[in-house]
Amino acid sequence: MILLIAYRVKGYINGMNTTSANNETAEHALVPMQSVGPVPIRGPELDADLMVPLASYESPVWPSTQRGARVCERAGGIVTLILDERMTRSVIFEAHSVVVVAAAAQSLSERLDELRDVASETTRFGRLVNLNTQIVGKLLYVRFEMTTGDASGHNMVTLAADRLMQWILGEYAGLSYVSISGNLCTDKKASAVNGLLGRGKNVVAEVTISRELCKKYLRTTPEALHALNIKKNLVGTSLAGGLRSANAHFANILLAFYLATGQDAANIIEGSQGYTYTDVVGDDLYFSVSIPNVIVGTVGNGKDLGFVEDNLKALGCREKRELGENARRLAIICGATVLCGELSLLAAQTNPGELMRAHKTLERKGS
Amino acid sequence: MILLIAYRVKGYINGMNTTSANNETAEHALVPMQSVGPVPIRGPELDADLMVPLASYESPVWPSTQRGARVCERAGGIVTLILDERMTRSVIFEAHSVVVVAAAAQSLSERLDELRDVASETTRFGRLVNLNTQIVGKLLYVRFEMTTGDASGHNMVTLAADRLMQWILGEYAGLSYVSISGNLCTDKKASAVNGLLGRGKNVVAEVTISRELCKKYLRTTPEALHALNIKKNLVGTSLAGGLRSANAHFANILLAFYLATGQDAANIIEGSQGYTYTDVVGDDLYFSVSIPNVIVGTVGNGKDLGFVEDNLKALGCREKRELGENARRLAIICGATVLCGELSLLAAQTNPGELMRAHKTLERKGS
Amino acid sequence: MILLIAYRVKGYINGMNTTSANNETAEHALVPMQSVGPVPIRGPELDADLMVPLASYESPVWPSTQRGARVCERAGGIVTLILDERMTRSVIFEAHSVVVVAAAAQSLSERLDELRDVASETTRFGRLVNLNTQIVGKLLYVRFEMTTGDASGHNMVTLAADRLMQWILGEYAGLSYVSISGNLCTDKKASAVNGLLGRGKNVVAEVTISRELCKKYLRTTPEALHALNIKKNLVGTSLAGGLRSANAHFANILLAFYLATGQDAANIIEGSQGYTYTDVVGDDLYFSVSIPNVIVGTVGNGKDLGFVEDNLKALGCREKRELGENARRLAIICGATVLCGELSLLAAQTNPGELMRAHKTLERKGS
Amino acid sequence: MILLIAYRVKGYINGMNTTSANNETAEHALVPMQSVGPVPIRGPELDADLMVPLASYESPVWPSTQRGARVCERAGGIVTLILDERMTRSVIFEAHSVVVVAAAAQSLSERLDELRDVASETTRFGRLVNLNTQIVGKLLYVRFEMTTGDASGHNMVTLAADRLMQWILGEYAGLSYVSISGNLCTDKKASAVNGLLGRGKNVVAEVTISRELCKKYLRTTPEALHALNIKKNLVGTSLAGGLRSANAHFANILLAFYLATGQDAANIIEGSQGYTYTDVVGDDLYFSVSIPNVIVGTVGNGKDLGFVEDNLKALGCREKRELGENARRLAIICGATVLCGELSLLAAQTNPGELMRAHKTLERKGS
Repeated sequence: MILLIAYRVKGYINGMNTTSANNETAEHALVPMQSVGPVPIRGPELDADLMVPLASYESPVWPSTQRGARVCERAGGIVTLILDERMTRSVIFEAHSVVVVAAAAQSLSERLDELRDVASETTRFGRLVNLNTQIVGKLLYVRFEMTTGDASGHNMVTLAADRLMQWILGEYAGLSYVSISGNLCTDKKASAVNGLLGRGKNVVAEVTISRELCKKYLRTTPEALHALNIKKNLVGTSLAGGLRSANAHFANILLAFYLATGQDAANIIEGSQGYTYTDVVGDDLYFSVSIPNVIVGTVGNGKDLGFVEDNLKALGCREKRELGENARRLAIICGATVLCGELSLLAAQTNPGELMRAHKTLERKGS
Repeated sequence: MILLIAYRVKGYINGMNTTSANNETAEHALVPMQSVGPVPIRGPELDADLMVPLASYESPVWPSTQRGARVCERAGGIVTLILDERMTRSVIFEAHSVVVVAAAAQSLSERLDELRDVASETTRFGRLVNLNTQIVGKLLYVRFEMTTGDASGHNMVTLAADRLMQWILGEYAGLSYVSISGNLCTDKKASAVNGLLGRGKNVVAEVTISRELCKKYLRTTPEALHALNIKKNLVGTSLAGGLRSANAHFANILLAFYLATGQDAANIIEGSQGYTYTDVVGDDLYFSVSIPNVIVGTVGNGKDLGFVEDNLKALGCREKRELGENARRLAIICGATVLCGELSLLAAQTNPGELMRAHKTLERKGS
Repeated sequence: MILLIAYRVKGYINGMNTTSANNETAEHALVPMQSVGPVPIRGPELDADLMVPLASYESPVWPSTQRGARVCERAGGIVTLILDERMTRSVIFEAHSVVVVAAAAQSLSERLDELRDVASETTRFGRLVNLNTQIVGKLLYVRFEMTTGDASGHNMVTLAADRLMQWILGEYAGLSYVSISGNLCTDKKASAVNGLLGRGKNVVAEVTISRELCKKYLRTTPEALHALNIKKNLVGTSLAGGLRSANAHFANILLAFYLATGQDAANIIEGSQGYTYTDVVGDDLYFSVSIPNVIVGTVGNGKDLGFVEDNLKALGCREKRELGENARRLAIICGATVLCGELSLLAAQTNPGELMRAHKTLERKGS
Repeated sequence: MILLIAYRVKGYINGMNTTSANNETAEHALVPMQSVGPVPIRGPELDADLMVPLASYESPVWPSTQRGARVCERAGGIVTLILDERMTRSVIFEAHSVVVVAAAAQSLSERLDELRDVASETTRFGRLVNLNTQIVGKLLYVRFEMTTGDASGHNMVTLAADRLMQWILGEYAGLSYVSISGNLCTDKKASAVNGLLGRGKNVVAEVTISRELCKKYLRTTPEALHALNIKKNLVGTSLAGGLRSANAHFANILLAFYLATGQDAANIIEGSQGYTYTDVVGDDLYFSVSIPNVIVGTVGNGKDLGFVEDNLKALGCREKRELGENARRLAIICGATVLCGELSLLAAQTNPGELMRAHKTLERKGS
């Protein structure tokens, strides 16, 4: 989180005494947490059946996700892949004319190797992989994309971006500083850029479920679930003015997973923009979730909390591995878990009968 | 959360044993929590200076928000209002032809009083206030809007929607059930509908800060902050393909506030779609945040947790008041707190110097 | 078009001599025009088979649309409806605080009858039917919605909005003028507001085509066309970051129809945001287009051109009818024609074979 | 236009007789056309003062644009640049699993040179410059980007895409054909992809106007116009749920320019998604338009019409030049002309007085 930078400096906040906040007795919000599963993960990078911890105030998230895990286990497991990974930060420069920013943008695109060396001065784990420039009038936005090892990488890329800005301001006389963050990044805001250009890990998970399993565990049919996905997730989301999104509730599972593993849960905003895609293949249901912006790390803020370390260890994400493999493993587990929760809720919504009975129960509670 | 309904029924989940999940020793995710403030709130509904609890893995959220609170206190406080409140659920019907759904949509719009009575059978706190229909081919989407008292109202409106569906299916022969949730609601997904038609509480908070205070507490000027808001929040967000959004990090403060007060934090997705609007008035900075979808309640899931009750009481949101007043008070506090955090971060981003120093510190940490 | 107003005033443009533009020998762009059809329209408001004129530089639009018309005729015709109609203009006011604009917004919503009377002073054909307000900080946006008879209504609603602004500024002391157009209207810009709140005529057209007809006239199957609509129009558009849109090329047919009937063709921007919805029902293909923002008129700019009058007469849109019926008839014809063109192109794209042969031909032309 | 392909094949449309359409006496829609200017263009690629033809049913477009041209001439001219150019077409493949499409996507990104050779077999003017892949479940979307010389390039890239599909289907056994157009292109639909990844020519035009000129020719001030741009184009468009757009009426000028120069005017949909960016620099107004998707050509459909040839010649776009230079020149002229029209309308909207008088005049006309 970019905030992290702005306040890790001694004496940063002048003109005010922040003791009250800093010395205050630390408390904790206790968010109920349970493990669900085993979530049956199959794929080139990870093949395992894992109990997954989820922290939430919404108790139904556990049995719902578990029901999905159960049927996926019977169906042979969830094939889960990572398509891409990077973390981004955009900065803003300004000049007196578009002529200056256009020349700078052109030049920067040709000096990627130099920029990579500059970025490398700020981190031994991150690497600049690409940049994207956007120009509006005399404003130049540069979106830096980096791989960030096992960290989600918000701070790593921000530090690199700051160093890159200094270097660029030194190299291009006509440019001036506008902002270390230009919202083209974009961090924790609904947008199209993260899906199209990438931010975090792009995870796809899929499972094929027979008609029998659909009926026995989900009380539905491949046709009913496929039709619901079209009418609700695809058409309904578009009608709402949705943006690069077609799913029922990725956000619920992502929030619970992020909280249980010490992630910055505000990243569920990008995370919620993904696709549930279904098909009827022969007599089976093809069910998949595509989540382009899973933002997780196994090191960094929140990862040193006791319960987080325990959870990451239990998920096998604190092993000695190649740089980035622990974080990739965590993202894969996250994606497979989201599939379980999404599948279960959609199946429930195909059946008015189930909800009728549910209502009777709730009404007695007098909502 | 709609999930709540699907799993509150005994024996609901057949074909599987959910004991492992339900009987599992309950654990908790311990999210660090601190109070910041006092946040100086001024307005027709609430005039108070309150310490606000924020739970987050991102430690900078506390001093950042506190810096904003401090300068707002010196500036005379944050004027905060609620413009509107409602909770929504959309359902989907289908017919064999658009002729049938068009006639039903027209009829429903003329029978709002009857629909209101039907909805009232399911709740003594909620009231149907309006509906919006959308038609695509032979599909009919009906978005129900209700006031829900002191609850955020997800379950209340879902129960009412289910009863309304039963009634409508009985009244209109040609319609059939498609889904209790059609994503036009829209719940926890980035969209335009919630901002335009309303979901949750529409909160606006504003403060006017003199040039002197800007310099002393924020190390910036009214002109610099106004220019940054234009280039980063307005232009930058649009460049990213942002949707009904122009802010730096509403999501961070909303997440911390929601977790500390027992809210369903996945609602930060709608919450993140709001506006920071600034202006230079004479020699002062006008700074405001407009958050159309603050979704909070003082009763319901998560509100019975000990620390949540303590926090709600400390905020004065568990008093005997008119129906809905406790929740409105909580939403106002939320909006004012978001302003504090947004103001502080934007001010920091106007100053490259601050971040340079911050980086040196962080680098020693070896990110 | 709002421009219309700004230049109909004698001596408006001071400091410059506009003679060169005004006295210049008037020329014309000659856009090739052909009629296609008959387009078989069935529905409560219009039941007719009409030859529809289309003007375009893209010659394929004629045979393509005609192929669609032919198969729809065989299939029993296109059921076409208008769900809603209104024209909009939004204005912007400003105050020193959100308190003032919030009070004004609340008051305006309670004084709709008075506002209607004020609007009526400016037109004998238009009628204010509703308004929507949006508040950002101390800014107040008011979106006026009017019925506008047989005119598309851009000027009618702008004139009314200007009078309403004067009246509101007189009634609410704290407000000041910002703009007669606030882009919340929104006119000729891609947005979500026009689809959700309405602008122009909301037209839905549908047809049911047997497997035999699909094969004989479209060389495809109900299943193939339905699958393509899901993968291309629904998923593909969303991936592109599309907004309230799922169609292949509404814009092409709308442009050709608007040019041939003297409409302001820039309105194809709103028009392009609509839905192609398909289904396989038994052995048949259900095919529909939903176009929420068809903006056409039978009077006003461009309608007095000779060829336009001829075309409107040929379409039966210059008859003595109730106010608005000619324009409604024109919108219905437009929607049915869009369906013909959309159906034909989608069918072609289900067949790689057809395009292979097409390519060979084109290559000889040496593109 | 992709339609072009589907119908240029002899005997293509079987099962129907298209003679009625093809042999029908060709007519024309006569769109009034006038030249405005001179438009004073300054820049590295083009320095000229040109009379620009505009065809429209909306007569105000001429004096409005001309007023803008006049003030820009006095201000020293409009600096206009092209930042990027490419035309795109996306195709869809499908496999039985994400594993297959993920491997194919990875492989294709490493075989760009081979793909370039395949594309070159279909055209001697176009060149494949890049590709972007998107994966949803088992679907693979590949967006091909090509330079297309002096043609707008719709057909050129579609032909190349078709050949590329054939080649890819031959190389990757697990893939099957879904569509030659996947809407990720995206053609004539509102989206975010074209702005972020490029489609057509990315044009930026800017001018700096003194306070005196603002007052004399535009009856406004730098401050008033800058404030209006913020409140209307930036905030207002976002409130409307706008997408990558902040302008008043790019579409009006683009439509008139496209019709007068034989372009496929449906491309105004992408064209309308651009930015008006303003600033007050010292005592001057900085005014710019950024139009990422100007789609024009000097050869191809519509360019052989007599009046189009005359207009292109008069604009100097039919000279013997390097491949693509004529089209680039045309795009630059287009961008500068849009600036003139945008500037003039925004200035008018800062003055309620002007519109008041305008209304009185119009009322006499009895709208």
